[in-house]
Amino acid sequence: MAVKNAFYAQSGGVTAVINASAAGLLETARACSDKIGKIYAGRNGIIGALTEDLIDTSAESAESIRALRHTPSGAFGSCRYKLKSLEDNRREYERLIEVFKAHDIGYFFYNGGGDSADTCLKVSQLAGTLGYPVQAIHVPKTVDNDLPVTDCCPGFGSVAKYIAVSMLEASFDVASMAKTSTKVFILEVMGRHAGWIAAAGGLASSRDREVPVVILFPEIVFDQEKFLAKVDDCVKKHGYCTVVVSEGVKGADGKFLSDQGLRDAFGHAQLGGVAPVIANIVRNGLGLKYHWGVADYLQRAARHIASRTDVEQAYAMGKAAVEYAIAGHNSVMPTINRISNSPYAWKTGMVELSKVANVEKMMPGDFISADGFGITDQCREYLSPLIEGEDYPPYKHGLPDYVRLKNVAVPKKLAEFKI
Amino acid sequence: MAVKNAFYAQSGGVTAVINASAAGLLETARACSDKIGKIYAGRNGIIGALTEDLIDTSAESAESIRALRHTPSGAFGSCRYKLKSLEDNRREYERLIEVFKAHDIGYFFYNGGGDSADTCLKVSQLAGTLGYPVQAIHVPKTVDNDLPVTDCCPGFGSVAKYIAVSMLEASFDVASMAKTSTKVFILEVMGRHAGWIAAAGGLASSRDREVPVVILFPEIVFDQEKFLAKVDDCVKKHGYCTVVVSEGVKGADGKFLSDQGLRDAFGHAQLGGVAPVIANIVRNGLGLKYHWGVADYLQRAARHIASRTDVEQAYAMGKAAVEYAIAGHNSVMPTINRISNSPYAWKTGMVELSKVANVEKMMPGDFISADGFGITDQCREYLSPLIEGEDYPPYKHGLPDYVRLKNVAVPKKLAEFKI
Repeated sequence: MAVKNAFYAQSGGVTAVINASAAGLLETARACSDKIGKIYAGRNGIIGALTEDLIDTSAESAESIRALRHTPSGAFGSCRYKLKSLEDNRREYERLIEVFKAHDIGYFFYNGGGDSADTCLKVSQLAGTLGYPVQAIHVPKTVDNDLPVTDCCPGFGSVAKYIAVSMLEASFDVASMAKTSTKVFILEVMGRHAGWIAAAGGLASSRDREVPVVILFPEIVFDQEKFLAKVDDCVKKHGYCTVVVSEGVKGADGKFLSDQGLRDAFGHAQLGGVAPVIANIVRNGLGLKYHWGVADYLQRAARHIASRTDVEQAYAMGKAAVEYAIAGHNSVMPTINRISNSPYAWKTGMVELSKVANVEKMMPGDFISADGFGITDQCREYLSPLIEGEDYPPYKHGLPDYVRLKNVAVPKKLAEFKI
Repeated sequence: MAVKNAFYAQSGGVTAVINASAAGLLETARACSDKIGKIYAGRNGIIGALTEDLIDTSAESAESIRALRHTPSGAFGSCRYKLKSLEDNRREYERLIEVFKAHDIGYFFYNGGGDSADTCLKVSQLAGTLGYPVQAIHVPKTVDNDLPVTDCCPGFGSVAKYIAVSMLEASFDVASMAKTSTKVFILEVMGRHAGWIAAAGGLASSRDREVPVVILFPEIVFDQEKFLAKVDDCVKKHGYCTVVVSEGVKGADGKFLSDQGLRDAFGHAQLGGVAPVIANIVRNGLGLKYHWGVADYLQRAARHIASRTDVEQAYAMGKAAVEYAIAGHNSVMPTINRISNSPYAWKTGMVELSKVANVEKMMPGDFISADGFGITDQCREYLSPLIEGEDYPPYKHGLPDYVRLKNVAVPKKLAEFKI
């Protein structure tokens, strides 16, 4: 087997652990120098490949690569750039092959969600057709937890842990204040299509520490009357209530609740905020004092409270990608296969990309409680192991010692390409 | 010296470490059973004293009291209830003395901010007048960091750490995405009058790791044109920009930027939404893609990433309060006295409550950079030690193992009192 170079790119919204996958991949590939030569990374994801803006990862020390394991965000830059279909934009796919050929790249590792799995598959297919075979391996990543086949997606467990911890802490806070002040706290979380992240808020409550958490899932049409009755009930029973609301919650009219939000003092619509909409509903409907927060990027960047399970799985996916490539596999994705819930056990598996691309995994119906505001025991059994364990980054002067890479550019060999 | 019982109450907005002060106080008092008998806590703060709703802390195990050190929020309940002036509501002060007398309470420990320092002082004065002397000791607590004399206030260091860590993480995230997506991230933080918490966002940037952080202080009148120029400059230079905005930022008209006409129980403007206002300004003025978050309660409840310095100081203040009481002091507050910046050293001091009550410490003018959007080296030297060190709580099933106390009520001896 001839030594070939490798290309790695990060795609879409970044997470607390996508760099842990990069660390697993780079450390494993570096140890296989008889099979894999240089490892190039795309600056700002696939755009780096299209524009031949490659990063030479060999310029980074072993220590820096190791530090990726505890550094959130995308160390090489990511991008939101979806390649069109092969029919609509064959030019871009051909360009990728051209760049790979110019730099003797035989391995394409693409770290992302559903869209990048699809791109990965197409690149591999076209490469064969064009007579320059490239082994394309997709490395799963998405806080949305919506990739099929794999039990969970790296990135999700850490967001879930952040939201569960935050909801627990905010609930303790509100409980302290409820007698004379705030009685309802509302936290807006990510998840436009599926309620995986919102569901994690439900973990703040457990059998031995009941917390009145009300969850608003994007899967459930918002029913104002039912919601207010639920909140009222919680406040009457517990003195307070915490609400976790998915950004994707819709009303009966099919519109995002956040679309009809507050207007500020200047008459501007306040975009992106379903939490203040819910807060107003609580105020107007029940007259209760509330506070609200919006976690936004904090939730997916919170490496300081990452799930150890998630970090280990993210690293393992990067490692497995290289191992599968060296074993000769193509158009595949490593997966996390759950063996048992309690004690939690999992192993690395593999799936054909054709079974992953363009398939979105939704939350099972039996994960949402009958009243639509909570999670079931099945959901709890699924989620709990994913937030298990802590994996603290090192600190310096009170702050996490996250690494910034040198990101040295590889000299270009081709003519400019406009995207 | 006769053995007297003690009363402890938590006041105002709770923090990640007010229970650490409670732990310091209770552990120290328990060890002095020859001087202090029972230690009662007010259920929901001072309201518990007024309504004779006392908690018998002796029902809690040593383990539970120890666990308070790592548990955020107010374990006995807090309240937003400010006693009126002695002239306007002598009845309430007299009631406090009546309750103290009925339960043989000779020590009054009040854990809070400026308002509670004032209450503490008045109770002590009136107790003397009424012939039932009570030693009143105020235990400092406020995320606003606005108590005078003491170098800093327990609760602030942990919020500062949370905001600095969050801004660092969000900045890494935005930097990864900026090429094709979000270029500006805006985080709204607490601080209605003083920019202490917003200033902490500036710690995300340092000499060896520059991050383009723009701070909007409540001390600086918002100038839209200057702000947009600053953001534009950052984005041009770094490709992205992160903004930390204090909830108390005002425009040239003197009105809160976030003001939507809501009022809280005290008649204060109900704030919480300046981030979307700033986001709209960025969108309309520069056409840049943005994201925004509102930390709200998460920032002050985030015991999971508390500053070790803050936890130690909070504990020390509770401990010192008891020691000062036993030494015979009255109408005093323990303070944190800074000895040196580097290496950071501090010791416990003491101040007369008359020098604390009704005095608000603002941020020094030379803490804000000349352009009004950053912090100076002086500010950095002051803030850095306060976020130093981590003090992780124990975890169980992936979540912090925070304690909930039994909070057993003490039998009442007096007639009902309406508040």
